[in-house]
This record gives sequence, structure tokens and C-alpha cells, in this order.
Amino acid sequence: MKWPSHGANPHYLYEEMNLTIPKEKLDFSANINPLGPPPLVKENWGELLESVHEYPDPNGTFLKRKLADREGLQENQVLLGNGAAEIISLIGRMLAGKQVVIVQPAFSEYEEACRGNGCQIEYHQLPADGAWIEDNVSDKLQKAAALFLCNPNNPTGAYYPKSIILHLLEECTRLHCLLIVDEAFFDFLEEYESISPYIHEYRNLLLIRSMTKMFAIPGLRLGYLLADQEVISKLAAIQPHWSTNAIALKAGEWCLDSESYIKETIALIKQERERLFRFYQNRNLTVSPSQINFYLLTDSSLNDQYPFLKFLLERGIIPRHTVNFPGLDGAWLRFAIKKPAENDKLMEAVDEWLGSRL
Amino acid sequence: MKWPSHGANPHYLYEEMNLTIPKEKLDFSANINPLGPPPLVKENWGELLESVHEYPDPNGTFLKRKLADREGLQENQVLLGNGAAEIISLIGRMLAGKQVVIVQPAFSEYEEACRGNGCQIEYHQLPADGAWIEDNVSDKLQKAAALFLCNPNNPTGAYYPKSIILHLLEECTRLHCLLIVDEAFFDFLEEYESISPYIHEYRNLLLIRSMTKMFAIPGLRLGYLLADQEVISKLAAIQPHWSTNAIALKAGEWCLDSESYIKETIALIKQERERLFRFYQNRNLTVSPSQINFYLLTDSSLNDQYPFLKFLLERGIIPRHTVNFPGLDGAWLRFAIKKPAENDKLMEAVDEWLGSRL
Repeated sequence: MKWPSHGANPHYLYEEMNLTIPKEKLDFSANINPLGPPPLVKENWGELLESVHEYPDPNGTFLKRKLADREGLQENQVLLGNGAAEIISLIGRMLAGKQVVIVQPAFSEYEEACRGNGCQIEYHQLPADGAWIEDNVSDKLQKAAALFLCNPNNPTGAYYPKSIILHLLEECTRLHCLLIVDEAFFDFLEEYESISPYIHEYRNLLLIRSMTKMFAIPGLRLGYLLADQEVISKLAAIQPHWSTNAIALKAGEWCLDSESYIKETIALIKQERERLFRFYQNRNLTVSPSQINFYLLTDSSLNDQYPFLKFLLERGIIPRHTVNFPGLDGAWLRFAIKKPAENDKLMEAVDEWLGSRL
Repeated sequence: MKWPSHGANPHYLYEEMNLTIPKEKLDFSANINPLGPPPLVKENWGELLESVHEYPDPNGTFLKRKLADREGLQENQVLLGNGAAEIISLIGRMLAGKQVVIVQPAFSEYEEACRGNGCQIEYHQLPADGAWIEDNVSDKLQKAAALFLCNPNNPTGAYYPKSIILHLLEECTRLHCLLIVDEAFFDFLEEYESISPYIHEYRNLLLIRSMTKMFAIPGLRLGYLLADQEVISKLAAIQPHWSTNAIALKAGEWCLDSESYIKETIALIKQERERLFRFYQNRNLTVSPSQINFYLLTDSSLNDQYPFLKFLLERGIIPRHTVNFPGLDGAWLRFAIKKPAENDKLMEAVDEWLGSRL
């Protein structure tokens, strides 16, 4: 069986598993803000039609300026991209043929981008329980050109605090290695300590950000990189012209203006995460120590989660498999945190599953 | 002075030339359908908000199927891209380090993409008058991995008939060389003879298409490649995930359903082109033999068109400079064909220019 490489577009998963797609389904496989796009985007959507018939500003000046201001950086320390996926792809090309270390488990695109560019890849494996394990990471970095770290982590949702990142940054600097931190989910954290100010000082620090998760605009594609201006201009030089579309550029500005929506989201996610985690704890199901909008779940009475996955899919509840996350290898299922009524349905289905196994 | 590399986003040109941007301006520098996006896109724009909060189908199955059907090809002979610019960038990466020949003058992105990937570049220079010059093109192809040809040509608007393309295709096949034809403007031709059926037979034929010109959706970014399935899968493997956004995928389907709009466009462009060309002829100004929606113009009484360009810009009429088109080197100005009232304003400004020179 060929497992889909990502969540979302669940019909590919149903097809591969030879299952009929139920009429009603809830997609927990994509880690998107359950509130949908910010009100500013929804209310002003009609206005965006005006941006269709003109070329996007290839420099995305307005959005870039807004992001730079927010982070206390210069515009030339920001690169906009056609989703964080494009940013990762550009970084992979920059690292072509080099040795890289990926902290696993992690979003699969780092490995894909590096492998496609002939990199040699080593893993630094962390457990799903969110513990930071120093182990011999410095040894691995000796010959490496870059270290990839996803923080908060996808798929566990664990957040490694600033002290750990700064320690890694020192190690990477000493060993002439890039530290590439993917912060696609940073804005779901209740308490986030920004490391973007360190870009002024450390020319080897790259921060990947996504705007499609918090702002629920994956259909538009919008991500960015914060890094030293030399890195930014190196990557900009190999990026296709007009890469970020005009709708994403304009909607992106509105997203950044949606402060109360961000607060509301964080509060909702926290409330639902706590409610779900209490539910799982009461049923002796194990979850990862997520601090954000998704988590890993496992029914540890099973050797293989496949029957659990199948049971849920048949009931229209769509988790994300973890078969292609090294170190997890299918031993967990990942779920996005959605609206209360949707999470209720998930919990009902889980209870049904547990009942069916009595 | 650093000339902008492309048309559109005219404020960059005004800035570079140190000119104040007039309140009223008409942008003739972007070759976009003057009717704007098709009615189907405008009328159903609201519906597209639904596509914002879901990931695009990474395979773009529906749009791909529609394009394949239209061309009598298989879906695996179609690659969707984030604008034709992304397709060109992917092709440049595939050709990394190789020798390529570019038929000039041509859209500047082929050279940019190839240069960025360390290709050696030779030109096969054609005159702006649209004549096909065979010259020693086969000699140049001996060592080349690919030949790039823009047909209909950007910036002249000239169309090289099928017989010439097939002759080139035979030569390229004999010499184990790719023939890459950029047909970004094919759908503006009154009589176009498709060469896409030859993809079944010739594994070295690549056809680049754009949907942003005819359908006036450059802000959305949408292009595609028609080619042998091996080429398609090679390029798909190095393309970032979810590269074509969900709005472009859906709007693209509506565009393909807009047959009467295409006809209306072709008729309008023809009428206006003939009207403009009569006007220029009466005033002894020279135009390129365009068969599509833009053309080159020169006031041959001038050694340098700069004063003419400046005169028009100051009046809010925005041509495209040709400084970065090899073989033209600024000796012409390029104009899109717009709506009748807009073309009237251009003609008024040209008359003013001619009057000022008496």
C-alpha cells in the first residue's frame, strides 16, 4: 500500500485503503485553525477579485514590510514563499549534496527536499513523549551543513523551549552549521518566546513560518522565511518569479491584522485540548504532550493502530496516519483539534471503538 | 539604471526613471486580456472562499483531466504549475549545467532559469520583423541539450507556422535535443495549428502554456506543461508540494469552460490590432507583424526610444521597455492591446508625441 505522504485530501487515503468514503466526514488530518479564515479575509473576499487580473508584486513589498516590522527585522531578512513547502524546497536546493541532520519525528518535507537534492541525511531521534534528548547531536553535526528542527514539533505538538534552541544555535555556530527551525505552528502556543531577534546576530539561523495553519488559508499557499539577508538573497535568486500569488499577498496582510482572532483561537484550542486529554486519560489512551492544535494518540493495547484507523475512517473520522514519520512508524495516529462539536464526534467514535473491543 | 526585468507593477519603472506616477495611468506593459477574467470567474468568485481553508489537491486532478481531454493527451502528460514561470524554472533545473540554445528575442525567463542553473547559453537571433531565419541553427544544436522557442513570439507577437516547428522538431530529434516551445499566447491566435498531438510521438517535445494571459488571471498564477510522461514525472518530482493553489485550480476549470469569452476576446483583439496598425502606418511608425495581443512599436526617426518612453510614462501611458530583450536592446517599445477607449488614449498620446517633435 502507498500511504499518502501528507494529511488533507482524504480521498487519496480512502482509495489506498479500499474504503468507501462516508457521506459525512470530519477531516482531523490537516492541522488547520478550526475557526476557518479570519473574519477580515471572509468579509473582504469580494475585494480580492481586483487582485486577480494584475501580476502580483514579485517582491511582495507590503506584506514583507508588515512581517519585518512585527519581528523587528529588516525587509531583506524576510523571504515570502508559495507556502512553507516552497521555502523548504528552496532550502533543500541550497543544501544540494551536503550532509544534513533532521531531528525526528518531523514534517516529512525536509527529508524529501534534501533527498531530492542529493543530500546525505542523518536523524537525531527524539521520543514521541516530547522529551529533549541531547545524546550525541553535536557529534552528528561535525560534518553537517544544516540541522532541521520542527518546533513546536509536528507531529507530536511538543514545544522545545528557547533555552534548548539557543544551546543548539551555539553548537551549530561553533560547528559552522545552519540551524533551520520550522516554526509553522508557533502562533498556536500560549507562551512563545521568539528567537527571531537572534537573526541579527547569527547568520546561520533560519526560521521557517507558515501562515496557512493559524489563518486557515492552506488553499492560498503562504509561508515565509526569516534569516540573514545573505541567505534570503541566495534563496530569492533561485525562486521562480511571482511565486507568491496576489490573493495570498493581500489576504496575508489581513491575517496579520487579525489579533483578536488569534487570541480567540489559542483560547479555544487550549480549552479543547484539555477537554480531549482528560477524556483520553480517563480511558487509558496515550497522547503526546502537545501544546498546540494537534496531538498524537495511540491505543497502546494494540500492536498496530491500523484497525483503529480503519474503524475511524469507516465512520467518517479522518486521522493522519504516522507511517512515514521515522520513529513513529505508524504506532500513533495524529489528530487536529477542531471545534467542540467536532471533537465531540471524535470522542463518540473513540468510545465506540473501545466498546467494540470489549 | 536598473531596468525592471518584466512588465506590470509599473511603479518600479517610475521609481527607476525618477518620474512621478501620474494619477491616471494605463498599463500597456502586461499582456493580459483587456476584458478581465471570464464572467464565470467573476460571477462565482464568492464560491472560491470555500477553497481557501482546504489544502489544494496536490495533483490538481480535475483541472489536469480537463486539460488532457482538451489536448487529446493523458493526464500523466500534463504538469500544472504556479504560473508558467514555475514551469520554466523547473525546466531550467532539469537542464542544469547543459548547453541550451534560445531563439531570440524571447521572454527573459528562459535565460534567467538556465543561467541560474549553470547552463551555457547560445542565441539563435531572429529579426523583429517576424521573419524566420534558418541560418545555422542546426550547427548550434549539435552540442545543445535543448532549444527554447517562444511561439507566438513574445515580444514581437509573430507566429511561426507549424511547418517551421515540425522542421525544428525533426532537427532536434535527430540531434537528441529537447524542443521547448513556449505557447503562452497561443490562444490569442485566430488560426492556431496545435502541435500537442506530436507529444505522443516525440518524447523531446515540451509545450509550455500559460492560463494567465487569455484569462487575465496573472494574480492567481496558473500555467502548465504538455510533454512526454517521463519528462512530466521528472519535473513533478522536483516541484514543491501543493504548488498550484486551490483558487487557481478551481478558477482554471471555469476558464476552460469559457469558450464564448475566448472567441469574443480574439475578435476584439483583431479589430483593435488592425485599427492600431492602420493608425501607426498612417504616421510612418513601424510595428512588428503581431498576430496576437501585443506588438512592438518604434519611432524610427529616433536613435534611442528613451525620450518616447519617458514622454508616454509622464502621460500615464505605460509601455514595456525592451532593453533586456537581446537583439532589440531598447530599440522598440512593446504595447499590449487593450480596450478601444484605452487604445484611443494611447493613439492620442502618440499623436501628441509626434506633434511635440515637429
